[in-house]
Amino acid sequence: MSERTKFELPESEIPTAWVNLGADLGPPPHPPLHPGTKEPLTPDDLAPLFPMALIEQEMSAEPEIEIPEEVREIYALWRPTPLFRARRLEKALDTPAHIYYKYEGVSPAGSHKPNTAVAQAYYNKAEGIRKLTTETGAGQWGSSLALACQMFGLECEVFMVGVSYDQKPYRRAMMETWGATVHRSPSNLTEAGRSQASHESGSLGIAISEAVELALAADDTHYSLGSVLGHVCLHQTVIGAEAIRQLELAGEYPDVVIGCVGGGANFAGIAYPFIRHKLREGKSTRFIAAEPAACPTLTRGVYAYDFGDTVGMTPLMPMYTLGHDFVPPPVHAGGLRYHGDAPSLCALVKEGVVEATAVHQTKAFEAAVQFARAEGIIPGPEPSHAIRVAIDEALAAKEAGEERVILFNLSGHGHFDMAAYDAYLRGELTDLEFSEEEMQAALARLPEAPALT
Amino acid sequence: MSERTKFELPESEIPTAWVNLGADLGPPPHPPLHPGTKEPLTPDDLAPLFPMALIEQEMSAEPEIEIPEEVREIYALWRPTPLFRARRLEKALDTPAHIYYKYEGVSPAGSHKPNTAVAQAYYNKAEGIRKLTTETGAGQWGSSLALACQMFGLECEVFMVGVSYDQKPYRRAMMETWGATVHRSPSNLTEAGRSQASHESGSLGIAISEAVELALAADDTHYSLGSVLGHVCLHQTVIGAEAIRQLELAGEYPDVVIGCVGGGANFAGIAYPFIRHKLREGKSTRFIAAEPAACPTLTRGVYAYDFGDTVGMTPLMPMYTLGHDFVPPPVHAGGLRYHGDAPSLCALVKEGVVEATAVHQTKAFEAAVQFARAEGIIPGPEPSHAIRVAIDEALAAKEAGEERVILFNLSGHGHFDMAAYDAYLRGELTDLEFSEEEMQAALARLPEAPALT
Repeated sequence: MSERTKFELPESEIPTAWVNLGADLGPPPHPPLHPGTKEPLTPDDLAPLFPMALIEQEMSAEPEIEIPEEVREIYALWRPTPLFRARRLEKALDTPAHIYYKYEGVSPAGSHKPNTAVAQAYYNKAEGIRKLTTETGAGQWGSSLALACQMFGLECEVFMVGVSYDQKPYRRAMMETWGATVHRSPSNLTEAGRSQASHESGSLGIAISEAVELALAADDTHYSLGSVLGHVCLHQTVIGAEAIRQLELAGEYPDVVIGCVGGGANFAGIAYPFIRHKLREGKSTRFIAAEPAACPTLTRGVYAYDFGDTVGMTPLMPMYTLGHDFVPPPVHAGGLRYHGDAPSLCALVKEGVVEATAVHQTKAFEAAVQFARAEGIIPGPEPSHAIRVAIDEALAAKEAGEERVILFNLSGHGHFDMAAYDAYLRGELTDLEFSEEEMQAALARLPEAPALT
Repeated sequence: MSERTKFELPESEIPTAWVNLGADLGPPPHPPLHPGTKEPLTPDDLAPLFPMALIEQEMSAEPEIEIPEEVREIYALWRPTPLFRARRLEKALDTPAHIYYKYEGVSPAGSHKPNTAVAQAYYNKAEGIRKLTTETGAGQWGSSLALACQMFGLECEVFMVGVSYDQKPYRRAMMETWGATVHRSPSNLTEAGRSQASHESGSLGIAISEAVELALAADDTHYSLGSVLGHVCLHQTVIGAEAIRQLELAGEYPDVVIGCVGGGANFAGIAYPFIRHKLREGKSTRFIAAEPAACPTLTRGVYAYDFGDTVGMTPLMPMYTLGHDFVPPPVHAGGLRYHGDAPSLCALVKEGVVEATAVHQTKAFEAAVQFARAEGIIPGPEPSHAIRVAIDEALAAKEAGEERVILFNLSGHGHFDMAAYDAYLRGELTDLEFSEEEMQAALARLPEAPALT
């Protein structure tokens, strides 16, 4: 075989440090604010929920943060993940572009989420915490945290949105296989749950409230979040750090880096290490954040202080937002249905370092099926948004006659999403429209806070 | 990290040849027989269903058979697969044993099945065939053949057992995503199907008849089988060939090699390359075939000529059998519910080269959950039988104070089998009993044929 398809790294090359892009960006001009006082958030405000090591990572000015040996040992169960050159897709598209994808679906949970779950479990364990709580919708984050807690001997309690609990028993079983306790939310274990008992089908907002309440009620219990926050984006940079090394093996450097965006951590994971090159060395790489057209935070939202959660318990974060109580249409890419985005990513979009584009779900699934038929792997609905953009870039390169090098993050497989493929193949999948009116109504309910410049 | 967990091979070390153990075993004393004439089967008998290259592989005396470059290129989409040392499981068991597992779940279909599907699609394409037909139960084999046909531009028509078609729409969607046409069996497309229309829920036997009928009806169409036959076992030996090289990297050689057994190909895949060492070099390695206690072909069956299929259309094969129309209880390890086994494996059991042991499904799932909590990966129900035996061997080594080196094949992940885990975790999984009486009744219906010595 003269042409290489796969660029593998040995276990010894699992990165030893995460890339802290915050050090390059400097102290944020608009810090997160306490939801009550509207004063800049202090470490003490966060201490009841997170271990100090993670709080420090939120604010660190260190360019690199060492990955603890214990975390690297767990990473070794699936990392380094492979980088593939999509030669068969290139042929199918008849493009001169070189398309590379980093495949995170080889983790036991089937996605990139364990990269941060394992780190969070480690730091909590190290500070004497005995139990972590979290919320989960479809179950991708909950199962990753269940896995991570099992690895470090922590208890894990997951509040799963009621309707998903009823409809997705397989993800629940996955969490239980890894030893977690899963509650249907709203539950009668918390005041928040009992007060919302009439909302039988539940919501992510209620589930967050339940998980936070339980964490606040016990000294040995903390809360854990799967995206948006700085430390979550940080932990995901192992993806890009490995990809840099693997592309070196291929003798290439990307002209375009693409990731899908829900809360921003998976995009940050593939992109931030390359964005550091751009900021420090003036590389001309383009970065494209692919979001769902039904929840177009970066392309249609406003840049403002807003709550991270639906009910308004979290700090105010400076970000593009559709309004914290905006309810996106139920697209199959459940992991991308978030009203805001990581503040660091929003700032990069604002400054023009990162481009954003919105993708309709039928176009995403069209790309997913084309990808699966060429490369084999059936992608999750979320990264299929990135695949759509990668294919469009490859076709543009063909049009322009350019040997463009394209890199995207294939953040997970679609084995738990075959119902969506079924609907697409039967022609029953439609594009769910974003409502400008509903966004405007939600934006009218933004919390009072300083305007962002 | 001082201790290595993962033993990866680069793409350039994908094996260049399959290991043909048939060359070591010599011409079989009991050849397969034509079901009508009861004369030894000739290549011409098989030609309407299989390409000549595969028929030759059935009978080849070459010790190694070259893997075509085009097949290796597709293998590169997921091969070489990783070999892991299960250090966390060893710790959990507090055993001096060294436990290694070869992980085939990284293939796009999630199991070892594509190893032969890709080879079969290639040889059929090379001989001008335009379409392959096959049957599938739960869909593991059908999805692997769908993938392989897509890679070589062949049409693929799959007859899926009716009850599975209704209950497992996700596996059907997987086949369709890879471009296959899936029929609910019994269908009205074939005479066999129409004649069985009253058996609404279908059976593997009916589905086989439908697939074979369609293949026989057109010159450009062949039939494809996912286990039992010699060429299928042959193609799976890439697993063991890679494992030999990977264990060299670990500086070890196995004392015990374990695989689960349905039709025998996955066991052959991990074991045959090592069995060659035993036969040629006198290595003392033990080989253990792990079968379900509910379908104990090797441990309770009789050694006799029998049909490979339920309805009696295939050649008579010399094997351990429970009777071709014996219906095993519906254990969750659907891939292991087969009345017979590969003739080569049966001969090795008969000669004492391979030991066989039967595992109850609750004990298999107990091992699976212990494995998942230690190593992360959630195993399929089939390889969980091998895990059970591996754990028992590791505990025996502890008892004996031995540093036993154990290797098993983790042939696939369990992401499509979470309903079974759910049942196990809720205490609703029971051991389904094998009926000696039903076996005796089925054995009374064995075809007339020479006795095996």
